[in-house]
Amino acid sequence: MPLSANDPSRKTWLDTPKNTDFPIQNIPFGVFLTRDDVITIGTRIGDYAIDLGALHQLGYFKGIPLTDDIFLQDTLNDFIADGRKTWRLVRNRISEIFEESNAALRDNAKDRDVVIFKLDEVEMQLPVQIGDYTDFYSSIEHATNVGTMFRGEENALMPNWLHLPVAYHGRSSSVIPSGIPVHRPKGQKLPNGATNPIFGPSRLIDFELEMAFITTDANNLGESISTENAEENIFGLVLFNDWSARDIQKWEYVPLGPFLAKNFASSISPWIVTLDALEPFRVESPAPKKELLPYLKFEGKKSFDINLEVALQPEGMKETTVCKSNFKYMYWNMSQQLAHHTVNGCPVNAGDMMGSGTLSGSTPDSYGSMLELSWRGEKPVKLKEGGDRKFIEDNDTVIIRGYSKSKDYPRIGFGEVSTKLLPVFEPKTK
Amino acid sequence: MPLSANDPSRKTWLDTPKNTDFPIQNIPFGVFLTRDDVITIGTRIGDYAIDLGALHQLGYFKGIPLTDDIFLQDTLNDFIADGRKTWRLVRNRISEIFEESNAALRDNAKDRDVVIFKLDEVEMQLPVQIGDYTDFYSSIEHATNVGTMFRGEENALMPNWLHLPVAYHGRSSSVIPSGIPVHRPKGQKLPNGATNPIFGPSRLIDFELEMAFITTDANNLGESISTENAEENIFGLVLFNDWSARDIQKWEYVPLGPFLAKNFASSISPWIVTLDALEPFRVESPAPKKELLPYLKFEGKKSFDINLEVALQPEGMKETTVCKSNFKYMYWNMSQQLAHHTVNGCPVNAGDMMGSGTLSGSTPDSYGSMLELSWRGEKPVKLKEGGDRKFIEDNDTVIIRGYSKSKDYPRIGFGEVSTKLLPVFEPKTK
Repeated sequence: MPLSANDPSRKTWLDTPKNTDFPIQNIPFGVFLTRDDVITIGTRIGDYAIDLGALHQLGYFKGIPLTDDIFLQDTLNDFIADGRKTWRLVRNRISEIFEESNAALRDNAKDRDVVIFKLDEVEMQLPVQIGDYTDFYSSIEHATNVGTMFRGEENALMPNWLHLPVAYHGRSSSVIPSGIPVHRPKGQKLPNGATNPIFGPSRLIDFELEMAFITTDANNLGESISTENAEENIFGLVLFNDWSARDIQKWEYVPLGPFLAKNFASSISPWIVTLDALEPFRVESPAPKKELLPYLKFEGKKSFDINLEVALQPEGMKETTVCKSNFKYMYWNMSQQLAHHTVNGCPVNAGDMMGSGTLSGSTPDSYGSMLELSWRGEKPVKLKEGGDRKFIEDNDTVIIRGYSKSKDYPRIGFGEVSTKLLPVFEPKTK
Repeated sequence: MPLSANDPSRKTWLDTPKNTDFPIQNIPFGVFLTRDDVITIGTRIGDYAIDLGALHQLGYFKGIPLTDDIFLQDTLNDFIADGRKTWRLVRNRISEIFEESNAALRDNAKDRDVVIFKLDEVEMQLPVQIGDYTDFYSSIEHATNVGTMFRGEENALMPNWLHLPVAYHGRSSSVIPSGIPVHRPKGQKLPNGATNPIFGPSRLIDFELEMAFITTDANNLGESISTENAEENIFGLVLFNDWSARDIQKWEYVPLGPFLAKNFASSISPWIVTLDALEPFRVESPAPKKELLPYLKFEGKKSFDINLEVALQPEGMKETTVCKSNFKYMYWNMSQQLAHHTVNGCPVNAGDMMGSGTLSGSTPDSYGSMLELSWRGEKPVKLKEGGDRKFIEDNDTVIIRGYSKSKDYPRIGFGEVSTKLLPVFEPKTK
């Protein structure tokens, strides 16, 4: 199917800011609450949120096989389960509806009034009900940095790391959309030199710069997905901040992996940018350093050039950009991740989320966590308006942004995931 | 609220086998497909499956605040979300309906015909849509056995083990009900002495004898649950076989924990036995070996005396009971597990599942996995009709059974979770 929505010369009749993350070539999908307290599925062009439920009721998707209520839902799961052909038909149609020469909606004030909202009139929700959330650990720079800190340079990478995309299961129930603040968690920590742990607020709260992809119903129990066919099961990507409490993590994670150090909150950006929208930004993956087992081999460009930045904003102060990285640095690409995840027959469903793992680059200014940026606190990160940070402090806001860009194509961006860290509070104990 | 359903002298007008796991004092909850291909929520008395959807439509739950379709669903999630008061009202009412002197349904052949099925006329389904599944590691005997094998007796228990209930997140999508067979998974394994892994069928397939509890909506993001109030958020328990591929596990699990070694399948028994039904079988937990942090302390009897057995049945042969254990051996009880899981504010929802971890006892015949029973394959387990087993072989069926029993109270049982291991097959690669 032609991706007519990817025509770089296409313009929209909507008034959009120059260099917006959301030109008519993007057309991401999200879920929002309107001023009338209606939940609907929508897309975004420029700074407008478009109500797809209303568009569908008005007949603008005529000819595309969609159930009547497919967009009048509080999650994208059913739409995602409809499969790639449907996503493409809908995205192409949206592009046509808003293309500058198309008068149907452009010149119908009554329809426009129920379909188009200003962004500040809507409240973005979590776009999917996440069934299972898996977090990979696929940046060689991040794994090497963390390994070096904890085990020394010689033993930095575990023996399995270059042979398989290491991953673990995370918690779906605490995945939250951008804008929802997070309280500093409490937990057990082992003070240096002590043999017994103490209980109290985590003192080493960190972000992790990640992206995550959202899948459709990919396979049944027992079936596997090849690297060749993996991408047709990937709906799109979001920015992802995998909040981490390093002191809790260090004490709890042996031998079964991170648990309470991670599951207090994980934040995602609200608009899912489709893989189709990112098509013009395909790039090669890093060359493998070891011969791969056949099920992990792949052909072609399976990575994407997506610029990533993390900004830190203490309350009442200007942002400081603390890190610039790129999704393309990821050693194991999404196709390899999905092939590995299903090679044992594990079923992947519509609305499942797979995190990339922290996306660090090779230079110190591209490290994707405070643990690495401040090298365990040894090199505090300077802030623009004075002061510094080893880890995240109370009332700091962490903002991740991401976008793809080239000379010949409009910028395709993700907006941001922005989360404020609130002080610890005595949680209401039930 | 009085648990009138727990009256040990109560008898039912239904014809039930002596020593059934499901006397009128049990009243578990499950989901089944009827001969007419209707999905409904039901209970079980003796060898009858009772259609609660039909009972409700016929007015038998009059006076209890329930939505019309609460039982006409394919999962128990909404009913569980209604909370403990509602579970108790419904369980007490079911007990009254089937109590021997109650003529309402007993003498109404027309109603009986649509409400009562023989067990072999229905097909049991997964009882809940599991949002998040967490597996604990709460048997000190199991953790010590595994630790001894891999690190020696001196370093068997990790330093954190006696201070917190170690746990990790598992995969919800591959949890299956009793009766669904499992194919031997493939994956990466590192041959002894090799530096590069090979790919192929797992050769060390194991069961893990566990139980799992199912929760209701327990807390919001940021809130915690105390050990004192934990049980009101626990709906009930099932038997749980946490299938494991030991060779895949050994290669993949460092540093982030088990992944493909576990997520190819996890089997549960179909009837959820409520905590209320187990009330007569409360016992003390094992005495803690270390002083506990305050949030993990508790008062009273928070453990339950539940006998557990594992039988192994090679195709065409008689079963051999390979292990007898008990839920009460668990070092960390469910209340401590739930308090720990939420101490950082992690939300727990209706339909979440928490596994106990392998429930080994202190004697070699009570070990809850083949890894321990055969001590890594060094001591093969003898089978009744000849031959032996180090791990599970193709076409073996693993059956876990569990029940509580005392002199003065009817036996309360769980039935079984029975799963056949099929040979590896070339999975359909999509």
